[in-house]
Amino acid sequence: MIALRGLPEIRRGADLAALVARAARRQETNFQPGDVLVVAQKAVSKAEGRVVRLASVKPSPLAREWAQQIRQDHRLVELVLRESRRVLRMTERALIVETRHGLVCANAGVDRSNVPAGAGRAGAHVTCLPLDPDASARVIANALRRRTGIVVPVIISDTFGRPWRLGLVNVAVGAWGMRVLEDLRGTRDSQQRVLRGTILAVADELAAAAGLLMGKSAAIPAVIVRGYRFRPGNEPARRMVRPAAEDLFR
Amino acid sequence: MIALRGLPEIRRGADLAALVARAARRQETNFQPGDVLVVAQKAVSKAEGRVVRLASVKPSPLAREWAQQIRQDHRLVELVLRESRRVLRMTERALIVETRHGLVCANAGVDRSNVPAGAGRAGAHVTCLPLDPDASARVIANALRRRTGIVVPVIISDTFGRPWRLGLVNVAVGAWGMRVLEDLRGTRDSQQRVLRGTILAVADELAAAAGLLMGKSAAIPAVIVRGYRFRPGNEPARRMVRPAAEDLFR
Repeated sequence: MIALRGLPEIRRGADLAALVARAARRQETNFQPGDVLVVAQKAVSKAEGRVVRLASVKPSPLAREWAQQIRQDHRLVELVLRESRRVLRMTERALIVETRHGLVCANAGVDRSNVPAGAGRAGAHVTCLPLDPDASARVIANALRRRTGIVVPVIISDTFGRPWRLGLVNVAVGAWGMRVLEDLRGTRDSQQRVLRGTILAVADELAAAAGLLMGKSAAIPAVIVRGYRFRPGNEPARRMVRPAAEDLFR
Repeated sequence: MIALRGLPEIRRGADLAALVARAARRQETNFQPGDVLVVAQKAVSKAEGRVVRLASVKPSPLAREWAQQIRQDHRLVELVLRESRRVLRMTERALIVETRHGLVCANAGVDRSNVPAGAGRAGAHVTCLPLDPDASARVIANALRRRTGIVVPVIISDTFGRPWRLGLVNVAVGAWGMRVLEDLRGTRDSQQRVLRGTILAVADELAAAAGLLMGKSAAIPAVIVRGYRFRPGNEPARRMVRPAAEDLFR
């Protein structure tokens, strides 16, 4: 795994594929067949202009009321509600929601950290998740292919909490260029027994692996995973969202 | 990440640290300061004799009834109930339970695959989770230190499902020798803003990363993660279990 360092602060309209390819070259590596690129959601959101100045947000009465309950900024809560199609729970500090993409996470992925305060406009800013993270991954993958001639699957990662475990882990909110679920049903284990029911969420494991290098405060928005034998295909990360009808825990 | 191959079939009483150190040497590597060892739960369970011959299990009437509902072997369901302190949900094929360790997972980690059918005794066998996976990790870490002179944190991994996402990912059910949660509160992000609420479950991310190499059918029960800057400490994986009182989803 190769952490790509030294990317500039990402601005709206930034060409992430170009920035990432340049960072790789500066580190004296180049994309190779078999590489997977994991990009932090925040970088993608910034490049897509999904940055909102809090002062520009008019909170509804409901957002004000809930913001008080969870001791959060009422403008941030307003954004969370706009990004959500359903609220599952209210914790002490966050709303657990289903986003418009179907992702279940805290505060709909709306996040304050690592956004330059007053970049251009005055006041605090937050990022929202890309409107279509799978499309974002596809755009980056296509641009990388044009630039390098190599087909590199792209995963867009974000840190999510888990209901029964403490701490956040990185998961794949967007993906393009590989199979995100590795279906081992029908294959045989080391005892030649047919495995059933075993499907690995390999895109989430790739996001988690890259998350070890990204940390949270380090300025590492992208990681190359080299040597993992992914299965080619264009399966969006959306495929890993459990259909609401099969969900036993909401 | 270095996949350790060619370990023999693990039998009760096997010295995992010795087997792993030998496998590393055969692959012309040696443990180095800074390495983390991830071992698949199944190997640990086998070494600890947590293998049960299904024919030896007498199912209760309740186990028989539930087994029919989820179309599972009634002896397997009996074992699941014995390993559990609480049943949360019943899916089409599994019971979602809280194990005696506090882990929320399908079928209490009782698993059929990769157990040699009739090794020694006749009939199908299953593995149960180690009785105390953190203690198991400590034993392996201590044995490795005695053998190699190097302090290597050990993580014991197993594949768990998630309520809102499809596919399994590897998590750390046991750990010793490192901080499993990386608390970034109080640190500053790249904009010098103080991060709050950001705690990364790094042991789970290490387990997920290793899971990419372990696959499920491949005979890779152990992976060395090299170059990850873990924080030393003896924090058990148990620390990552969310206290039931804080759980909003059962």
